Amino acid sequence: MPKIRIGLIGYGGIGRVHAAAYRAIPFHYGLPANSISIAGVATTRSETAEAAAAEIGCDFHTDDYRALLARDDIDAVDICTPNNSHHEIALAAAAAGKHIYCEKPLAMNVAEAMSMAEAVEAARVKAQMTFNFRFFPAITRAKQLLEAGFVGRIFSFRGRYHRSSYISSDKPMSWRLRREITGGGALFDLGSHILDLLYYLLGDFAAVNATLDTLIKERPIAADSSETAPVDVDDIAFLHARLPSGALGTVEISRMGTGATNDLSFEIFGDQGALRFDLAEPAWLHVYDTRDADVPLGGRRGFRKIEAVGRYRGQRAPDWTMSPDFMRVHAECQYQFIRAIQDDAPTAPSFVDGLHIQRIMDAAERSSECGAWVRIESAG
Amino acid sequence: MPKIRIGLIGYGGIGRVHAAAYRAIPFHYGLPANSISIAGVATTRSETAEAAAAEIGCDFHTDDYRALLARDDIDAVDICTPNNSHHEIALAAAAAGKHIYCEKPLAMNVAEAMSMAEAVEAARVKAQMTFNFRFFPAITRAKQLLEAGFVGRIFSFRGRYHRSSYISSDKPMSWRLRREITGGGALFDLGSHILDLLYYLLGDFAAVNATLDTLIKERPIAADSSETAPVDVDDIAFLHARLPSGALGTVEISRMGTGATNDLSFEIFGDQGALRFDLAEPAWLHVYDTRDADVPLGGRRGFRKIEAVGRYRGQRAPDWTMSPDFMRVHAECQYQFIRAIQDDAPTAPSFVDGLHIQRIMDAAERSSECGAWVRIESAG
Amino acid sequence: MPKIRIGLIGYGGIGRVHAAAYRAIPFHYGLPANSISIAGVATTRSETAEAAAAEIGCDFHTDDYRALLARDDIDAVDICTPNNSHHEIALAAAAAGKHIYCEKPLAMNVAEAMSMAEAVEAARVKAQMTFNFRFFPAITRAKQLLEAGFVGRIFSFRGRYHRSSYISSDKPMSWRLRREITGGGALFDLGSHILDLLYYLLGDFAAVNATLDTLIKERPIAADSSETAPVDVDDIAFLHARLPSGALGTVEISRMGTGATNDLSFEIFGDQGALRFDLAEPAWLHVYDTRDADVPLGGRRGFRKIEAVGRYRGQRAPDWTMSPDFMRVHAECQYQFIRAIQDDAPTAPSFVDGLHIQRIMDAAERSSECGAWVRIESAG
Amino acid sequence: MPKIRIGLIGYGGIGRVHAAAYRAIPFHYGLPANSISIAGVATTRSETAEAAAAEIGCDFHTDDYRALLARDDIDAVDICTPNNSHHEIALAAAAAGKHIYCEKPLAMNVAEAMSMAEAVEAARVKAQMTFNFRFFPAITRAKQLLEAGFVGRIFSFRGRYHRSSYISSDKPMSWRLRREITGGGALFDLGSHILDLLYYLLGDFAAVNATLDTLIKERPIAADSSETAPVDVDDIAFLHARLPSGALGTVEISRMGTGATNDLSFEIFGDQGALRFDLAEPAWLHVYDTRDADVPLGGRRGFRKIEAVGRYRGQRAPDWTMSPDFMRVHAECQYQFIRAIQDDAPTAPSFVDGLHIQRIMDAAERSSECGAWVRIESAG
Repeated sequence: MPKIRIGLIGYGGIGRVHAAAYRAIPFHYGLPANSISIAGVATTRSETAEAAAAEIGCDFHTDDYRALLARDDIDAVDICTPNNSHHEIALAAAAAGKHIYCEKPLAMNVAEAMSMAEAVEAARVKAQMTFNFRFFPAITRAKQLLEAGFVGRIFSFRGRYHRSSYISSDKPMSWRLRREITGGGALFDLGSHILDLLYYLLGDFAAVNATLDTLIKERPIAADSSETAPVDVDDIAFLHARLPSGALGTVEISRMGTGATNDLSFEIFGDQGALRFDLAEPAWLHVYDTRDADVPLGGRRGFRKIEAVGRYRGQRAPDWTMSPDFMRVHAECQYQFIRAIQDDAPTAPSFVDGLHIQRIMDAAERSSECGAWVRIESAG
Repeated sequence: MPKIRIGLIGYGGIGRVHAAAYRAIPFHYGLPANSISIAGVATTRSETAEAAAAEIGCDFHTDDYRALLARDDIDAVDICTPNNSHHEIALAAAAAGKHIYCEKPLAMNVAEAMSMAEAVEAARVKAQMTFNFRFFPAITRAKQLLEAGFVGRIFSFRGRYHRSSYISSDKPMSWRLRREITGGGALFDLGSHILDLLYYLLGDFAAVNATLDTLIKERPIAADSSETAPVDVDDIAFLHARLPSGALGTVEISRMGTGATNDLSFEIFGDQGALRFDLAEPAWLHVYDTRDADVPLGGRRGFRKIEAVGRYRGQRAPDWTMSPDFMRVHAECQYQFIRAIQDDAPTAPSFVDGLHIQRIMDAAERSSECGAWVRIESAG
Repeated sequence: MPKIRIGLIGYGGIGRVHAAAYRAIPFHYGLPANSISIAGVATTRSETAEAAAAEIGCDFHTDDYRALLARDDIDAVDICTPNNSHHEIALAAAAAGKHIYCEKPLAMNVAEAMSMAEAVEAARVKAQMTFNFRFFPAITRAKQLLEAGFVGRIFSFRGRYHRSSYISSDKPMSWRLRREITGGGALFDLGSHILDLLYYLLGDFAAVNATLDTLIKERPIAADSSETAPVDVDDIAFLHARLPSGALGTVEISRMGTGATNDLSFEIFGDQGALRFDLAEPAWLHVYDTRDADVPLGGRRGFRKIEAVGRYRGQRAPDWTMSPDFMRVHAECQYQFIRAIQDDAPTAPSFVDGLHIQRIMDAAERSSECGAWVRIESAG
Repeated sequence: MPKIRIGLIGYGGIGRVHAAAYRAIPFHYGLPANSISIAGVATTRSETAEAAAAEIGCDFHTDDYRALLARDDIDAVDICTPNNSHHEIALAAAAAGKHIYCEKPLAMNVAEAMSMAEAVEAARVKAQMTFNFRFFPAITRAKQLLEAGFVGRIFSFRGRYHRSSYISSDKPMSWRLRREITGGGALFDLGSHILDLLYYLLGDFAAVNATLDTLIKERPIAADSSETAPVDVDDIAFLHARLPSGALGTVEISRMGTGATNDLSFEIFGDQGALRFDLAEPAWLHVYDTRDADVPLGGRRGFRKIEAVGRYRGQRAPDWTMSPDFMRVHAECQYQFIRAIQDDAPTAPSFVDGLHIQRIMDAAERSSECGAWVRIESAG
């Protein structure tokens, strides 16, 4: 297999996670240590770029991502910058013929997302989203079961992503609360994850009826400051959604979920069975099968807690039957990208997938403004 | 305390539960066995009335509830008939000066509910709803905590009542699926319970945005029949709700909740704390307190699972620290009614409460038709 | 069916529960209200006997249980007195030809238990133990599965009954802490329940190796008293147990289980499957089946949470799919006794069962003294 | 900080985990990528050593660990070989002046463990055990709470480690089932982990009373072979244990825990509070505090589920509030070893700790043989 050389653009919290995950891939999949390398890193300031390079252990660093794109020893870039630069960087990377791995959400809005999807298609580069939650083994298992018809006709579904990061009104402003940087609030940041999971498992959304709200509308401009600034993004978003089949869903997204740390879960109800996943128990998928025998005085029906630990395709490491964590699913998501490049195969989740999520989020925002259902263009 | 003599109207499944619960009250509250009696029973057929009387152990039975109302040895009637007769019976009972205990939902629609609330007010009889779920000790405890400001400003809430009773398309028609008898479907039958819990804990709803659906639109007219009839009530109802304070909620109601037996739960999120209840663990309330100390390397914050078992006011029986069940909370709800009569005190839940639930359900139906938010008149 | 007239002996907390449960039986099983009656009550003082009769609604009361035994209108007695009077009362009742329903543990020691089992056998009266936990539907279901070979060869098992009633050293002495009244401590009071469940499900115990301890050895003689008295019974008992098949088990019994309310649970592990029950979720049995298909990338194996709600044989009331509680399982246990009388059938749990539990407890005490395994005589 | 160069001895499943964990350390703690390196690898065959070196990305590989010990560019060795070689390798490494990181259990028996502890003491090299479970943040938090007196006087405790790896009698022999290679069975393999956790949290064990068993005594010598060989190690071990304080504990260790994947848990009960941990929920510690206010109609007492995620001392990476997994706790355990070398500080868990665990396991084996309590020499 050809070696893959990554250029990392952005080295904040998530950039560091991606870097560590690239480093872990050889061990998980039994590859030579040097089969994947981070060949360079770009940040916006030369000091942070230099520090990043030392931590990563790579020779090249720059405060101009274009310098990274200009290098021949870079096969692919990994975009870990704030949302408002994804579009510009992705277009430049596509023009430079680099494969692209991009953090979620894809873009600031549908228009940007469309032009990005078109650009990578035109440039014939591989382009993949970081929708890392897809790669919990329990999700992979749920996808298999759904494709095999396990739940039958889908009646309804529910998704949720709650965090409690912003429940204190003393918490000051940050870039995550500024629309010009993020494009959206909880809906974009948390919602993109749970919406992608539901889309991955259930397919296109046909329409949404959503209510977004900003429960805390002003925050201190800095810790201990008495001056405040307005928050111009949502901190809570509740959606009702329709699939083309008519199945009805509900999705709860909140940064104000008091008590939540990373409360992501979903349920899918069908006429033959049901599925449940909760990130609090990442190693298990709960399944219910109406076909289980039911006999007098109590049958054997009931939700079954299926072990779903790391048994990824291609994985060499032994199955440690342990809780898969954040780092492991990032490694798997990135490995899929590497394999798509090596095998010249389609990426998944692709930028087209990222575009559909952008369309759902855009429809949710418009629905909230008008108080009515808004239809969503198909991804197909 | 004066003895209370009940006339039971209707003796199907729920009538039998009420009868058994009256019988259990003396033991729970240390009253003489004869302090509460069922003095008569009315059903629609003389055979069933006679069988009911034998089972209950009372002398009087009739196939005409008016004969029951005419008796002097009846202090109060308990209405356990289908929804479409509540209005007529309640008005006749009020006219006869009988106190009234009525199964949920109060009526077929808002107009009936209003006239019932007015009738009992005018007749100065005690009138109480069977909203038995309120009387799980965990709910009582949640109410106390909310009144004491435990959760602070309420950000959002979620409620749910799922059952799986109708997921099979082979299940034939029944009276529960006919609007002329019930007034509504899952929303009326299951929704009235969870909506009352949220209303009890959080107060009036200001507006709802709801989607109701009938996922299985035709059913066999009888088991093994190839002839089908249309189902004209909802089997799923998803609501978004606003409180007057601006708090945003979501409520999921379904008869199509594959895998559910009696899946009733709620969560309340506030800036100071959070509460959770799940009927699958009826003896516990989960509470989260932001005021718990948080220290480096991990604090002591977290959801606390509080024992909430039977420690009702006035209860004489020892606290058995066991799971409270269905029968016990019916007994408590009925005991509150008995006490309101004996003490000449207001009832709770009252017919005014029942009317507000009817208004929420009515608004939900209208919202679903128009696809937009519908405002709700205040209960106050 | 002949009417059954009960004489209740003892009317403390558990006596009141039994009385209420008799009253509920007709409703649960569709019997006429007067088919079971409490015809008299005996306590040790005339005032308490009179109050009990008023609460129960019966005419006869006495401060001498022998007066109750002398009456012709009593078919059976229900012994709810402290352990140290069970033997005397049961022998007198048998001599009087009364059927006997007796609270656990059967007796103060093996010798008493043997003479009681012999006495009821000789007198040909029906005699049943109050091992009410057997009658949770989940336990009934577990028994069925075990009998059907669901778990295969049993490898090992674990049982537990923890309460936290005595963790405070300020809690004063009570009759439950005095060996002359109870015969034993946590082992007798809590252990008899969990040991019976394991015996019911798994059969005879062959030997035990146990450690009993009294963690708090002195207590105030009364609340706020500075005078103390020694505690002469165990407050914790840990057992290892062998079945005749060689299966190895562990049982934890404690009154010092900080945080526990009624923490009773068990697990059974076999080569074909496993079972779990936890009283905190009384409506469910957890089962694991090795025969479930296991396929690449994760199979469908896992613990299944089976709904196990009230579907008792003969039950007429609808299945309310609710949590079964304490009162309901007492009613079922008592109903089994009533039916054994009416049908002239063997009782279960019988005094022979009570005797085997007594033998296990006795062996545990002796094992703890000698620090070694002690064999147990077979029940058969 | 000086760079640390590791020589890895053994590259089976656990060797690969250690290698990957070393590689992840710089990212978790914000160190330069080259601050920790694997400078060489030794296995027993030159082909596997060469493959290991390619995967690790190191230059030196050998089929003779002594060649590794002879190199100047190795600061420390990490022993990932089967138990029967730990003693020889550790003594040679100490003689070569290399620091030592050793997989559990320390040795084949107490004598070996003693000589290893003495050798590293004499050679003044740092020596640490791989007791990785200690480093789940929830365990760190439990340790802090215990040291702060949170649970008060300890009444009792319970530990468990169940896996289901060997429940099928068709599963063939393996090195894990041969005493000459492992020194012991489930007790050594799984028991060393849970016993270390309890020892870490509670201190020395004073005595044990244990029963070990081999439930499946013969296995095929290979898959599909009809020839069998005897299993000469335990597959189940149940212990009762005493602490010097008198606290009583029970420990369940089994490879025959049908349905278990990695079922490790413990509970600690004291007069002031209680603690619970379950590896199925690795991100949480459950704590109960008797000092929480208890008020009429239900207090606020109850088990609290405390978030315990990665907030390690020195950690630079953001707190991802995710489930900590196997790899993360190995990285932390190894980082502690690295820091002990760099800071010339004592190691923890040390070989002395490993020796105490060996003494507990040895006492358990002897207790099982004699059926009585066996005392354990203090670690101090």
